Amino acid sequence: MKVLITGFDPFGTEVINPSFEAVKHLPKKIANAEIIKLELPTVFQKSSEILKKEIQIHHPEIVICVGQAGGRASISLERVAINLAEARIPDNEGNQPVDKKIEIAGETAYFTNLPIKAMMKNIQQHSLPAEISYTAGTFVCNDIFYRLMYLINNDYPKIKGGFIHVPFSHEQVNGRENLPSMSLDDITRSLFYAIESAVTVKVDILENVGVTH
Amino acid sequence: MKVLITGFDPFGTEVINPSFEAVKHLPKKIANAEIIKLELPTVFQKSSEILKKEIQIHHPEIVICVGQAGGRASISLERVAINLAEARIPDNEGNQPVDKKIEIAGETAYFTNLPIKAMMKNIQQHSLPAEISYTAGTFVCNDIFYRLMYLINNDYPKIKGGFIHVPFSHEQVNGRENLPSMSLDDITRSLFYAIESAVTVKVDILENVGVTH
Amino acid sequence: MKVLITGFDPFGTEVINPSFEAVKHLPKKIANAEIIKLELPTVFQKSSEILKKEIQIHHPEIVICVGQAGGRASISLERVAINLAEARIPDNEGNQPVDKKIEIAGETAYFTNLPIKAMMKNIQQHSLPAEISYTAGTFVCNDIFYRLMYLINNDYPKIKGGFIHVPFSHEQVNGRENLPSMSLDDITRSLFYAIESAVTVKVDILENVGVTH
Amino acid sequence: MKVLITGFDPFGTEVINPSFEAVKHLPKKIANAEIIKLELPTVFQKSSEILKKEIQIHHPEIVICVGQAGGRASISLERVAINLAEARIPDNEGNQPVDKKIEIAGETAYFTNLPIKAMMKNIQQHSLPAEISYTAGTFVCNDIFYRLMYLINNDYPKIKGGFIHVPFSHEQVNGRENLPSMSLDDITRSLFYAIESAVTVKVDILENVGVTH
Repeated sequence: MKVLITGFDPFGTEVINPSFEAVKHLPKKIANAEIIKLELPTVFQKSSEILKKEIQIHHPEIVICVGQAGGRASISLERVAINLAEARIPDNEGNQPVDKKIEIAGETAYFTNLPIKAMMKNIQQHSLPAEISYTAGTFVCNDIFYRLMYLINNDYPKIKGGFIHVPFSHEQVNGRENLPSMSLDDITRSLFYAIESAVTVKVDILENVGVTH
Repeated sequence: MKVLITGFDPFGTEVINPSFEAVKHLPKKIANAEIIKLELPTVFQKSSEILKKEIQIHHPEIVICVGQAGGRASISLERVAINLAEARIPDNEGNQPVDKKIEIAGETAYFTNLPIKAMMKNIQQHSLPAEISYTAGTFVCNDIFYRLMYLINNDYPKIKGGFIHVPFSHEQVNGRENLPSMSLDDITRSLFYAIESAVTVKVDILENVGVTH
Repeated sequence: MKVLITGFDPFGTEVINPSFEAVKHLPKKIANAEIIKLELPTVFQKSSEILKKEIQIHHPEIVICVGQAGGRASISLERVAINLAEARIPDNEGNQPVDKKIEIAGETAYFTNLPIKAMMKNIQQHSLPAEISYTAGTFVCNDIFYRLMYLINNDYPKIKGGFIHVPFSHEQVNGRENLPSMSLDDITRSLFYAIESAVTVKVDILENVGVTH
Repeated sequence: MKVLITGFDPFGTEVINPSFEAVKHLPKKIANAEIIKLELPTVFQKSSEILKKEIQIHHPEIVICVGQAGGRASISLERVAINLAEARIPDNEGNQPVDKKIEIAGETAYFTNLPIKAMMKNIQQHSLPAEISYTAGTFVCNDIFYRLMYLINNDYPKIKGGFIHVPFSHEQVNGRENLPSMSLDDITRSLFYAIESAVTVKVDILENVGVTH
């Protein structure tokens, strides 16, 4: 089995992005699955074009995109991607969409089809903080999550895909008042346990009750 | 023109619900529109059945549901309702759904079709705090918002509908550490300006760029 | 009876300071006491020199200084001023002290001698949010509070003095994520009720148990 | 050299206290200093009596008390202890003082005499989050910190003493919304680097500018 996992490059006023810092420290194998790592630019649409090419090359069974959510205190497993691009700051190529549909023909939203509750529990059982989130925002993180789910729903129905938001790393918050953070090591370990569940869980808690994927 | 506006009764450990406290202090007319007020029980599904009957009786052009979002600091104009019911605490009749679709045949999500950016600006221009939110949670607030938009999309395409979350009122936070709150008077005034915009704005900023409603 | 109440001018990146905005809207009389209002510059030491001159001119029985505490959600009645000046940003004349004693011969700290619990209760009973705070920080707010209490302890033992921190006003927070705020009207009313108690309360709850002033 | 370091037992609704959990995982030696560990009950006054006996037995050069500050995001090195006991909840023996002086003959406050800025920098340089705090609250944490500094100022002028607040551990926050936390391993490492500095730093940044200790 192959797992494609991506992180972003730094954006805004930050000098690192904990998402790819953590991704690049993951091992090459988790629960017998091959881990393929990819750094994406924090750029609307372009990031998903790069992602799509990698999917075509590697044929992964699982695709997980990871991004930074400054201000959150826990690993956030995202439930839903919405068909909306709206940016408070420019992305890394200067794009700043306002009230734009991501895909004209796409649905209003897609739910992830990863077993995110099992993933959350596996992270928590290893004494790390995790929660389910119901908004991935409207910046590049939601953009790639939406485009990934659109791709899965239209062209790759067998791929399981989703998005994980991670807090600032400890290095990013010193000197700023009371901002939550995690160590890069803990973020990396959390991603490890998330992937471990995604690879091994056959029937998610979600699927038991017949919900949305 | 008629505007139907609803608030909820208290739930959880709270003894008041600022949403209906504010709704009931609104005037009978705003910008020449008649204001019809309704208190709903904080109960999954049942609240929307009561709402549906009132819509059938009054034929409002605009329907706005209001709910409490403890911990938020601003009036939140919700953008999107999702097809998911998941409760951390029981509602006022003991229901506590987990991972349940709200409507089996419904879309994954609906966007509001109210001019929420114009409404936000009108609130802000009167020196009150407002913002757009991209999650109404997964409790009764999202449930009624989703069912309202489902109804509009399927049976009442001419109705404009949406949901507004309000912070705790000042009375609710004394003795709890650093929880944001607003005065009931300010919450009421914010709802007034939101309705004023909803009634008078013909083309929202959103509609200019061809987005979702 | 005379009450001298002060607010500061704007500092940092803010264009208003809600402390003096509120002070200037107070009435001229509260509970039969004459209210003398004063705007102070946000400048270490200099602000207290101006304050001292006004005390010499007016001979007030009560002196209350008011300042902005961005990020707090409630009216904060400060309990203690500490002998330390330490600034993250320059004051309005460019001073940025680090680890400096305010008064070489002063005590490590002084408690307020205002009846702050009665003041807090009076604010709360009028449905406004208030709390006791145990740090006024180390910027100009703590500086003037410390110098006021030093003056009272050394030269004016009959004056009752203290400090009140107020949240951002609603105007200051729009466009910033989930920052708490109050309306200027509510801040003004809170100061009114604080003064009303300070003027009329003879024996504070604090004094009953023989505490520190 | 000997360092006496203490943590508390769990209190309120918590089942662990990360302060002693971290303390007990420290090594026996740090920078050639012997580390003596002690668990204290979360009880006003009694905790300091136990501490005093250990000081008399071991004659440590440095005493650091550690406590839990739920809701804070960083390791907090406390600057000041105040002569006030005021409890929102009972301690572990049911005491709930209101507005009580800790020591009738004590000063209003004492500053720590540990090199807390050097300690903060050492923690930060190892990619862990740390800050200076100006309030240790008014519960048992401030009580033991105040009594320790009172003891030092009156009887043991050669001892360096202080207090460190630590965030919730990851285990404590799952299921609670957006509460900051650190791993016990990171808390333990932070205490290690704090002690390392306390042991080796001869002249603190603070002492350079002639401040308070």
